[in-house]
Amino acid sequence: MIYLDNAATSYPKPASVINAVKNSLVCYGANPGRSGHDFSVKTANIVYEARKALNDFFNGDGAELVSFTQNCTQALNTAVKGFLKKGDHVVISSLEHNSVVRPLETLKVRGIIDYSVFDVTLNKETTLCNFINAFMPETRLCVVTAVSNVFGDILPLAQLSEIAHSKGAKLFVDGAQGAGIIPVDMKKQGIDCLCIPGHKGLSGPMGIGAILHKNIDFEPLVYGGTGSESFNLLQPRDYPERLEGGTINVPGVCGLLQGLRFIEAKGINSILKSETEICDEIIYGLKRIEGVEIYRPKGDIKYAPLVSFNVNALHSETVSALLNKGGVAVRGGYHCAPLAHISRGTKSTGTVRISPSASTCKKDINILLNLVRKIAIKEFI
Amino acid sequence: MIYLDNAATSYPKPASVINAVKNSLVCYGANPGRSGHDFSVKTANIVYEARKALNDFFNGDGAELVSFTQNCTQALNTAVKGFLKKGDHVVISSLEHNSVVRPLETLKVRGIIDYSVFDVTLNKETTLCNFINAFMPETRLCVVTAVSNVFGDILPLAQLSEIAHSKGAKLFVDGAQGAGIIPVDMKKQGIDCLCIPGHKGLSGPMGIGAILHKNIDFEPLVYGGTGSESFNLLQPRDYPERLEGGTINVPGVCGLLQGLRFIEAKGINSILKSETEICDEIIYGLKRIEGVEIYRPKGDIKYAPLVSFNVNALHSETVSALLNKGGVAVRGGYHCAPLAHISRGTKSTGTVRISPSASTCKKDINILLNLVRKIAIKEFI
Repeated sequence: MIYLDNAATSYPKPASVINAVKNSLVCYGANPGRSGHDFSVKTANIVYEARKALNDFFNGDGAELVSFTQNCTQALNTAVKGFLKKGDHVVISSLEHNSVVRPLETLKVRGIIDYSVFDVTLNKETTLCNFINAFMPETRLCVVTAVSNVFGDILPLAQLSEIAHSKGAKLFVDGAQGAGIIPVDMKKQGIDCLCIPGHKGLSGPMGIGAILHKNIDFEPLVYGGTGSESFNLLQPRDYPERLEGGTINVPGVCGLLQGLRFIEAKGINSILKSETEICDEIIYGLKRIEGVEIYRPKGDIKYAPLVSFNVNALHSETVSALLNKGGVAVRGGYHCAPLAHISRGTKSTGTVRISPSASTCKKDINILLNLVRKIAIKEFI
Repeated sequence: MIYLDNAATSYPKPASVINAVKNSLVCYGANPGRSGHDFSVKTANIVYEARKALNDFFNGDGAELVSFTQNCTQALNTAVKGFLKKGDHVVISSLEHNSVVRPLETLKVRGIIDYSVFDVTLNKETTLCNFINAFMPETRLCVVTAVSNVFGDILPLAQLSEIAHSKGAKLFVDGAQGAGIIPVDMKKQGIDCLCIPGHKGLSGPMGIGAILHKNIDFEPLVYGGTGSESFNLLQPRDYPERLEGGTINVPGVCGLLQGLRFIEAKGINSILKSETEICDEIIYGLKRIEGVEIYRPKGDIKYAPLVSFNVNALHSETVSALLNKGGVAVRGGYHCAPLAHISRGTKSTGTVRISPSASTCKKDINILLNLVRKIAIKEFI
């Protein structure tokens, strides 16, 4: 199998990640932050090391402001639902994933908040203008993705943040497709809260994510044991425990830490360069196949290393099923981002998404392109 | 180190669990339920196998009614917050953990619900009487733990359920200390919703839990991508996805599945018998040490295999720190269960909790008892 579905979850994982997860079950086997014995403290120390590593990697405001979650979705729900109050208005981009849209829509349906969607266009000035126009007096929060999970657009976070802050709103970033893929710097880009998955660009296992924030007063999503202030019947105020009710995923944390170390050792810009070159090769090949439409319009947009396309009038799931038959794993459909398809006109078919890794080789690309060629001339149906 | 803190997290994990977690990173490395390619389907299949295994083990109402969470706390928050509506009244026991108390207290402080606590006494009839007296016309829900995480009391779930149902209320069970330790049967015991951790009695890794329920109409705690109904801006209604926004912890699921198989192969009653005998030996030894108070009052109460005690007037955390110095890992303090200490009069010291596993040996017990003896005569301070 040629795996080109790294935007869903990265594969293969580095050997160091696999070993770290395995070893954690032996070496970090006690519950951190609960008991006071040495084994528990040892586990708490590695968890702290991972917090610190994440904080450093994303230039956050402190290791204690990194709380671990099950995934990026839980981090986003924690951030959005924990920050918003009745009457608030939120601005989101047209490229947001359902992990942002669904919590907001639910709050809207219940009459608690309202939100507006600004269209991300091919022209940066127009996009920023759309963003500004989406604000209302009640706008307290903007939520944008760092990278579109469907089309790969990299959003101009620093500029969006500047505008948001000038209007008294905070900027929360969905790092699902950005973290570990493109450089993300909370301080330089003015990100008030960053939600990340461990299992995509950061090369960690599935089941771990994190929320990094600038000491925001979040109401927790999950209330429960924190190993602290047992007689406080409400959730303790201290971070990171406030957002970590219940036992955290220690094997996931250990794997994520090694994933981060892997990225650091390779260099994020070096990985990005390799993956971008691979995407460029794929695009070059796809462009030469009649009937293929690639969703990489020219303009001011910078793209992360993923490519969405369609073949003739075929539904993207048909094409991805055919590629699967040929031994190539990609994702078809809507990628849980309905607004993106409405915005870019791909609602009827969805898109076939290719998301390579730095280890994708020339041979893989040729096999992919040959299959697409056959699908385009209906030789493979 | 002699590890007697299995109630916090079980250790060591069976080799089959460690291998399953490691192998999952290689063999089940795609995101389940997202893409349609073979690798993703293969992962989805093992996840389904785990749902089915849990459903069978707890005699639930169907594999699709098993949703995976990060831990038992998240499962309890999902259940409690997803079920309750404004004006509801809840009945909980005096032995509940903060994973039950904190979400309820938060809802109470916000004026959404109210709750009453019934005292679990040494006499079953009195306990049931207290339970009945705690009901109000608005009582829609009762939440009780299967086993006290502080004192080990096993609650009479079947009788509590019968009473709850006769009054039109549902019974949700916190299986944190019961799942995999004592037999729990959703049908026989009339449990409407069971929340479980994977990393305690079920021998799985930290970071995985589950909610099993009888097709209850829960409002989700986490909204987000489910890989289904992308254009539905609200969370899809179908279980298990409805309660599984975002990527689940696949390595955790694979580990939990093997943990379950391990318990099944050994037989839960056989493990319980071994652990009970170990506790009996510990209690026998502790009883012979002057100054030791063991919290195992005689009465109608049946106990799970854990023992809480104190030494002289020492704070439990002092004693557990001394035991740690001697190479024995136990937990002191309040165990995130404040009501239990108020109810049983241990608020000033907390308790030292010993929670052995079936692999705890005679030698371990002797070392523990010798240390407690030294602490009692202040030889070790």
